[in-house]
Amino acid sequence: MRLSEYERQLREYLESYITPKRKGRMKAVLAQRTRYIVCVLEDLYDPRNGSAVIRHCDALGIHELHAIENRNHFRTDKKVDMGSAQWLDIRVHGRSPEEQTSNDRTRESGLVPSCGVGALGALKNRGYRVVATSPIGHCLPENLDLRSGPVAIVFGGEKHGISARALEKADSTLRVPMVGFIESFNLSASAAIILYILSQRLRNEALPWELEDDDAERVMLEWACRTAPHAERLIRQFRSETD
Amino acid sequence: MRLSEYERQLREYLESYITPKRKGRMKAVLAQRTRYIVCVLEDLYDPRNGSAVIRHCDALGIHELHAIENRNHFRTDKKVDMGSAQWLDIRVHGRSPEEQTSNDRTRESGLVPSCGVGALGALKNRGYRVVATSPIGHCLPENLDLRSGPVAIVFGGEKHGISARALEKADSTLRVPMVGFIESFNLSASAAIILYILSQRLRNEALPWELEDDDAERVMLEWACRTAPHAERLIRQFRSETD
Repeated sequence: MRLSEYERQLREYLESYITPKRKGRMKAVLAQRTRYIVCVLEDLYDPRNGSAVIRHCDALGIHELHAIENRNHFRTDKKVDMGSAQWLDIRVHGRSPEEQTSNDRTRESGLVPSCGVGALGALKNRGYRVVATSPIGHCLPENLDLRSGPVAIVFGGEKHGISARALEKADSTLRVPMVGFIESFNLSASAAIILYILSQRLRNEALPWELEDDDAERVMLEWACRTAPHAERLIRQFRSETD
Repeated sequence: MRLSEYERQLREYLESYITPKRKGRMKAVLAQRTRYIVCVLEDLYDPRNGSAVIRHCDALGIHELHAIENRNHFRTDKKVDMGSAQWLDIRVHGRSPEEQTSNDRTRESGLVPSCGVGALGALKNRGYRVVATSPIGHCLPENLDLRSGPVAIVFGGEKHGISARALEKADSTLRVPMVGFIESFNLSASAAIILYILSQRLRNEALPWELEDDDAERVMLEWACRTAPHAERLIRQFRSETD
């Protein structure tokens, strides 16, 4: 959605307090951001893994990350992500109260809980194909179809992998081929390999991966709001001046 | 070096105690092992990182891993590598006593220590080109020359990266391209991306990556010695029977 005149002015106001060097850096990074690939983390347990993937996404220009909570709350570790979370669009999908009840029941009975997966439906409604990563996945990062439209790459939790419900929603499955005794990479390594290869392919295969203009303007406003020095005070000041 | 008759018999003896299914798995994994790429870790601090890279190497069939110790002892964490260390040829290069003295002096003065790097010279003598990974490296994993011969990929420590002395020994440098605010992947992610792409390229570009026959025989003997049930007792028994 396009910035309103008010938002545009706020952005300019905040940007006037950001050094030209910093602003140049923000624009350069923004020009490489994409939502053609989004990353979905389902029910991670270890805050270091969540933060490691956040750092991968920042480094690779993957702007949108979804965290689906089933058993576990999505937690991060600043020592690992080094502050990169503030530069991403991170959306956490918690459990609704009803789901929690049914979920706690399924947990007791040992079944895979079903909640939070609504997020995948919402991504499909936005035109994403859902791709579930699994050690027995069908495609490889090198040959996953990227031409048919944007993709949401789903990584499952450390212990149980992707839930049955998430797998049901998947349009395709993806694996990292392995030839060793231990039949899996850890989550962070698997995500690094998959997201790196897909994001390189996007850029090399001339796909429409850039953010749309309105989206990019809005991201710049968000970055300015989060990172201008004393941003909160500046925003109050701007409001009192324009009201 | 070729197995002696004694070693060949020991291997057969140990293998007779390994289930056919297990033996089949060992042979399948062995057929995918390579020394065309070796991995070198210089002065890692965090045991989890060492173990994460050990796990990557096993999963990718990279059989030989060198750990160079400068400031830090090479330590691993079994919870992370899940026992994959026993399936690799891991060589730790500690500091010699003289080096330790000069090194402790350089450490106090804040200089980068120089020891352990002899391991890189030894790899060069074996015909390896030394490739140093660095955020400002020249090549990318996709275009590093693999045709000119085997490569030793060096990853530096978490805090200081690759030492100046190791960089001096390098024949080329390698980076993972990044487009975010945080200008580096963590060590484990960077190693996963680089080693995955190089090992896929090896297998796709018809390079002579397989272990030589004598080497493969010896690896099989080592695996049998490490993993046959009650191996130590069996080896003692074999010795007393053949003496």
